[in-house]
Amino acid sequence: MLLVRLLDLAALPADAIPPDAARMARLSLFDWIVCGLAGRDEPVARILRGMVTQESGAPQASLFGGGAAPMRAASLVNGATSHALDYDDTHFAHVGHPSVAIYPAALAVAEARNLSAKSVIEAFAIGAEASIRLGLALGAGHYERGFHQTATAGAFGAAVAAGRLMGLDRDGMRRALGLCATRASGLKSQFGTMGKPYNAGIAASNGVECALLAQAGLSAPDDGVAGPQGFVPTHSDGSDIAAAFALPVSERFLLADVKHKLHACCHGTHAMIEALRSLCAEEGITPDAVAAIRLSTAPRWLSVCAIPRPRTGLEVKFSYAVLAAMVIAGRDTASDRSFTDDLAADPALTSLAAKLSVTGDPGLTDLHARGVLCLTDGRELLFAHDLAAPKAPDALATALQGKARALIGAAADALWTDVMASDGGCARELGHWLTEGGRK
Amino acid sequence: MLLVRLLDLAALPADAIPPDAARMARLSLFDWIVCGLAGRDEPVARILRGMVTQESGAPQASLFGGGAAPMRAASLVNGATSHALDYDDTHFAHVGHPSVAIYPAALAVAEARNLSAKSVIEAFAIGAEASIRLGLALGAGHYERGFHQTATAGAFGAAVAAGRLMGLDRDGMRRALGLCATRASGLKSQFGTMGKPYNAGIAASNGVECALLAQAGLSAPDDGVAGPQGFVPTHSDGSDIAAAFALPVSERFLLADVKHKLHACCHGTHAMIEALRSLCAEEGITPDAVAAIRLSTAPRWLSVCAIPRPRTGLEVKFSYAVLAAMVIAGRDTASDRSFTDDLAADPALTSLAAKLSVTGDPGLTDLHARGVLCLTDGRELLFAHDLAAPKAPDALATALQGKARALIGAAADALWTDVMASDGGCARELGHWLTEGGRK
Repeated sequence: MLLVRLLDLAALPADAIPPDAARMARLSLFDWIVCGLAGRDEPVARILRGMVTQESGAPQASLFGGGAAPMRAASLVNGATSHALDYDDTHFAHVGHPSVAIYPAALAVAEARNLSAKSVIEAFAIGAEASIRLGLALGAGHYERGFHQTATAGAFGAAVAAGRLMGLDRDGMRRALGLCATRASGLKSQFGTMGKPYNAGIAASNGVECALLAQAGLSAPDDGVAGPQGFVPTHSDGSDIAAAFALPVSERFLLADVKHKLHACCHGTHAMIEALRSLCAEEGITPDAVAAIRLSTAPRWLSVCAIPRPRTGLEVKFSYAVLAAMVIAGRDTASDRSFTDDLAADPALTSLAAKLSVTGDPGLTDLHARGVLCLTDGRELLFAHDLAAPKAPDALATALQGKARALIGAAADALWTDVMASDGGCARELGHWLTEGGRK
Repeated sequence: MLLVRLLDLAALPADAIPPDAARMARLSLFDWIVCGLAGRDEPVARILRGMVTQESGAPQASLFGGGAAPMRAASLVNGATSHALDYDDTHFAHVGHPSVAIYPAALAVAEARNLSAKSVIEAFAIGAEASIRLGLALGAGHYERGFHQTATAGAFGAAVAAGRLMGLDRDGMRRALGLCATRASGLKSQFGTMGKPYNAGIAASNGVECALLAQAGLSAPDDGVAGPQGFVPTHSDGSDIAAAFALPVSERFLLADVKHKLHACCHGTHAMIEALRSLCAEEGITPDAVAAIRLSTAPRWLSVCAIPRPRTGLEVKFSYAVLAAMVIAGRDTASDRSFTDDLAADPALTSLAAKLSVTGDPGLTDLHARGVLCLTDGRELLFAHDLAAPKAPDALATALQGKARALIGAAADALWTDVMASDGGCARELGHWLTEGGRK
């Protein structure tokens, strides 16, 4: 049943992709390239690029940071590179990062076969939807057991995207997914190490490999996904196959709900940042007008991103107090480069940060924050933001362009133009952005 | 604890490898090359060789069947190729195939670094022991959940072997294993498809990749193997970490118990074949002297290899009846080429086969068979064999050479000489066997 639905989805005509999902897929392509360019000099990116460069294979697909490699190798490098800063998009229904697992696979195959940029976006949309649906089937029992959906469900999405671009027929796609069942892997216990971005590369590379082998005729189980001792039963203690397609893809692509990070810090702080930014913009708040900040968030964040007096730039990313101070003081939270160790010691921020108190409220979701800003004149202003609420399309586009400028400078505008106009372009032009982007 | 023991094992000096294990490792090297050469034209071998050949990377390591590829790619190809016929060695304590997962990794790294053949055998012995010990820790709950030890525990063994040959220090080896925790994969539901030999290639390739990345500095969890949400807890419902090193490696290497297949048919039939071969040789039994064959085996084999009237050569591999007839009639069971469809229809065999009856005996292990050969003169001769009993070293050597001749012809003798004398040789000479073996 699950396999049939996934195969139906994989075979969906491009014009059946809902416009809102297609639009999100295109925005994610822009954001994915920005994240990859911003991450290209991170150690994990250099190490993986170094490994495949030493292998010196056929230059089939571009690498973030320069050079080219065979499809499997390029997918590995580009997945890890674009997830190096952990600044890429997130889908909260199954909790995974669609772009870093699937775009590397789609782009590599499309470059190697000289396909259009449009086909890359379509293959991503279908592949991402497949990974989200499979992620729902795997359920919370997958994540709780310790598996990392970006790596696991992501590999199947990458296989769907790659297989689609290779023109696999239904039986070929079945075998690609069946092989992916034995190839996909990835654990959450890698979080906090370079193993986390590596997981994204693993997903992309596995997807490409399984699609290539299926195309070449490798056989696989009838149903490696949900059949006996298939991927779902072996990798989840509480799978929910019915949930996966409860909302038919003909009605809606869940991909449309994907969220883009706009601040280079822990996702648990973003709702607060958005809420305070709106309030400060509307009310013209200045730092010296603030007497106290009382924040409420989902209780689980208290052990994650409530460091009261961070000592390093990295710790600031997990500090409601200093991040609130940054927003009120008008500091940039979009650029990874903002988060220096000096920032943590800035007296203007630390005195403001000391005014924040945070409490857990079980009534709030992980995406929701609210609070009260107490002013020295005695006024108490409420603030709140729910990341689950869709951002207006134009606002999202503007925000992503702002993030891109913060990360890759002026090249952001040319990239935006290219990606938004890419109906007519080819995948290799996109590939050129990976190797050369932001170098001018 | 498990991680510490594995790291201790990985760092063991070569002269601490017990002689019986070192001898088995060398015999397994010979047998592994024979299996790879015999399997080099199987479809799964051609498909994987085709994929990496198209990638046309640096010729770092030899491929079974010709050509060379980067270490990761060569390991993938050679693992799958050598497991294509399912004729390679088996370790029954954890139930996995050590050689096909670990020798491809060890040889590829040693070729790339131009190391000695002796170092390949030593790295295999240590890596195989690590995979067997980890396999014991994963326990029956790993296999029963659906994971394929050859692929999973095998990847860690391959990482140990590869890392050792790369000269990783203790922290490097820890990271290699920590990365392998997120990279290793493989399901039993692939059995009966090309996904099964693919699993062996996955293991070898994953091991090499993780060792390369660890050497290049990729970070990993403190204990990715048995730490929180590490590989063992996420991949087994009933792990038994204490069992893994209950017998210290300083006392014995479990690798010494590895079993080599000597007949090109289901492992469940081998005990019967050995028992009947001994009896027929001792008593000079001829087919027309046989009135009935009454066989007892472990009950689980009745649904696996008790096809009474096989219709194809493949089905003969799962038929006690025809296999018993082959032994009594003096037919070769060592060569895969014996098992033709004509064989299944041979009247001399089918009339003999009709005289066999088989019953399940819960008192017998999977490795044990016994029975009664009833002769036309009224005599009843008992036969029995337990594969668990170690074969005398010379007998095993002779048997493996016989198997090799059946599979690769006269080249077997030259290969034997090379492998047995390989203390002085280099890994690249072994690699030459993969590409050119048996072509003369």
